[in-house]
Amino acid sequence: MTAAAHRVVIVGAGFGGLAAARALRGAPVEVTVVDRMNHHLFQPLLYQVATALLPPGDVAPAIRDVLRGQHNAKVLLGEVVGFDTAAKEVDVVLSDGAGRKIGYDTLVVAAGATDSYFGHDEWREVARPMKTLADAIDLRSRLLSAFENAAAAEDPAECDRWMTIAIVGAGPTGVELAGQVAAMARRTLRRQFRGLLDPTRVRIVLLDAVDSVLPPFSPKLREHTRRTLEKLGVEVRLGKKVTGVDGDGVVYEPGDERLPARTVIWSAGVKASPLAEELAKATGAESDRKGRILVEPDCAVPGHPEIFAIGDMISLNDIPGVAAPAIQEGRYVAKVIGARLARTPRPGPFRYHDRGTMATVSPGDAVADVRGLKLTGFIGKLAWALVHLTFLVGWRNRAAVMLEWAWLVTTGRRSQRIILEPAQQQKITRTHRS
Amino acid sequence: MTAAAHRVVIVGAGFGGLAAARALRGAPVEVTVVDRMNHHLFQPLLYQVATALLPPGDVAPAIRDVLRGQHNAKVLLGEVVGFDTAAKEVDVVLSDGAGRKIGYDTLVVAAGATDSYFGHDEWREVARPMKTLADAIDLRSRLLSAFENAAAAEDPAECDRWMTIAIVGAGPTGVELAGQVAAMARRTLRRQFRGLLDPTRVRIVLLDAVDSVLPPFSPKLREHTRRTLEKLGVEVRLGKKVTGVDGDGVVYEPGDERLPARTVIWSAGVKASPLAEELAKATGAESDRKGRILVEPDCAVPGHPEIFAIGDMISLNDIPGVAAPAIQEGRYVAKVIGARLARTPRPGPFRYHDRGTMATVSPGDAVADVRGLKLTGFIGKLAWALVHLTFLVGWRNRAAVMLEWAWLVTTGRRSQRIILEPAQQQKITRTHRS
Repeated sequence: MTAAAHRVVIVGAGFGGLAAARALRGAPVEVTVVDRMNHHLFQPLLYQVATALLPPGDVAPAIRDVLRGQHNAKVLLGEVVGFDTAAKEVDVVLSDGAGRKIGYDTLVVAAGATDSYFGHDEWREVARPMKTLADAIDLRSRLLSAFENAAAAEDPAECDRWMTIAIVGAGPTGVELAGQVAAMARRTLRRQFRGLLDPTRVRIVLLDAVDSVLPPFSPKLREHTRRTLEKLGVEVRLGKKVTGVDGDGVVYEPGDERLPARTVIWSAGVKASPLAEELAKATGAESDRKGRILVEPDCAVPGHPEIFAIGDMISLNDIPGVAAPAIQEGRYVAKVIGARLARTPRPGPFRYHDRGTMATVSPGDAVADVRGLKLTGFIGKLAWALVHLTFLVGWRNRAAVMLEWAWLVTTGRRSQRIILEPAQQQKITRTHRS
Repeated sequence: MTAAAHRVVIVGAGFGGLAAARALRGAPVEVTVVDRMNHHLFQPLLYQVATALLPPGDVAPAIRDVLRGQHNAKVLLGEVVGFDTAAKEVDVVLSDGAGRKIGYDTLVVAAGATDSYFGHDEWREVARPMKTLADAIDLRSRLLSAFENAAAAEDPAECDRWMTIAIVGAGPTGVELAGQVAAMARRTLRRQFRGLLDPTRVRIVLLDAVDSVLPPFSPKLREHTRRTLEKLGVEVRLGKKVTGVDGDGVVYEPGDERLPARTVIWSAGVKASPLAEELAKATGAESDRKGRILVEPDCAVPGHPEIFAIGDMISLNDIPGVAAPAIQEGRYVAKVIGARLARTPRPGPFRYHDRGTMATVSPGDAVADVRGLKLTGFIGKLAWALVHLTFLVGWRNRAAVMLEWAWLVTTGRRSQRIILEPAQQQKITRTHRS
């Protein structure tokens, strides 16, 4: 690689950013991947970290490890805070606090999405999100502590509040968490709280403002999902709009009903990363109401053919905000960059190849819609497991995850039941109760 | 179990407390294990969590999981804050913040030890301890961030400060960390910081006030350990008394020499858990200068045959503060309790059966002194691995740890390279640098 190589800066090492970096492996470019975390996150299995099944490392390979064999790529740990499109520079705050400007010839912004509280950011400290690894670890502590606190409570009403887990948002994350928490309560914890807790009293309440679970799926699969969750003991309450969240639970319409619950999980909304706004400011691009940038058909930012945006932070042809299109966009953008440098014909506009959607519902059940083929039950779960193991990065993690699954299926036990800081969590909870 | 069963309260689920609980499995008693953490910690492998090799769950099984089959034992998550020996009650703050009094007929206090800064508690925020799981996870973030910050630094002196890891205290923990950090820098990270960092410039400096590493071992094994560490590139500086610690490094005598280092690990001293002082106050027992309670030959607290203290928080016949005596004391105390209830002859005074001491030095080398038989090198490492796998709780964890070791040996890669909160860490570091 010469000093004059074309510099591609990729912001974000999620599905889109990593796919772009890897697809540029053979291109005559110098790739710099900037991320504020040192790891890629395989978000589809994050709920299994939150439910004490998988260790964080199994779903979060170090970015350097993923790119270790790619000689034209380097990695920088730092938070991108702005773009200077005139100087063609990205402003980065490094992890030691120092500022740095990184020059680019081509920029790929793949900063993803974050949770949205629809203007009620004050709910966040009680209604916990599950987007990052730190979120999942925090949630794990809260769920495990809730059962401990329920077991120790002397007042039955207080015990009930600890035994109630409210999950707001019945999309894939909410559904997957509801099923897994139910399985954890009923199978893993039953023997271990023997005599202290009646696991049949655990209430998992899944709320959504719309009148269906898993909106992107077909009516048949949605109905199957709802029924399966209810068989697991999950209370599915649809058409309920949450209007308040505090340390005692959630309030929802219609009727200002209150659900007393000490543990509230928020999986109701996403919006584009704040970097989308920075990018819009720097380029004059327009955004939709979720803050996602409207890009050209080739994922370029309007007026800036040297800047691409991909993944959950863009709005393009109603493509859903999941992993598959982000990966395809990353590869597509790498092709466009390669064609430009080689002066070969550019590929046509980006087209998303929808290979299907799937979501796990319970330990033995998943729903999948693969090009019109609808799978449910054990066959669906098998398809789900195969697809997720395939997309997981690295053979070590595939093997490790398979072993954890096998251990869970045969023994019902979960190896990562760590409450890191019970005292700290208690402090947060109490602050919000007083 | 009847309501009138003899109530044994065990404070602490470390090696001693768990051994006592398990040894009471067949006794006509009702056991309550109280711990402020929900997990037992297998401290001998904690340094492998700090160096990104093992996931936390592999060395920290949930206490409920360990005792799941024991019908006369229950577990309470809460922090013991005091003892009322007249009412025979233990004061507990539960994890939800509520207070609770737990009555006992027999009390076993096994609260362990904590790190000691010899009166300089202000050093703690820079010179980080490695006693708890949270400590190890924090240390892992700091070590991984140090290499990231070194790679990003533009000033060579700043790069050097990030590349220098000072370890204060050359006992087993310091030696094991030094060897493992050296291995991580030289093998795992070399390829992945290609072109950004010269791993041969990483400096690991092991300091101790006494003039030897691993004081409890024989001179021959100590000399072998020092030479092996030096071959790994660790700088061993003995007879150096640390007199100052700040964000720029450590200062030591003689000569007020300064070692510039951004990462400082403290493994220099331990003292008894603060609960030892509470117990001494409540019973009038005497303590030694490390805060350890002087107990009777049967581990009872003087004047209180119904209260036993075991493990690292007691002083008895110069027995070292490691896992084996704590386990033996736990089993012994269970026997004493059983004999009392059965009105059979009590066992004689506690006698520690020293089955040997071992410490790992490098990925391929450990020293072991097994009843006079001195092992080093690969044979020592094999013995070390076998003993540690044997003492690890549970077959799942044994298998998981073996697989991680095999993966490291064959690929040099570490799966748990997670920096959870780079921003947070940076804040702490910067506070102490300004």
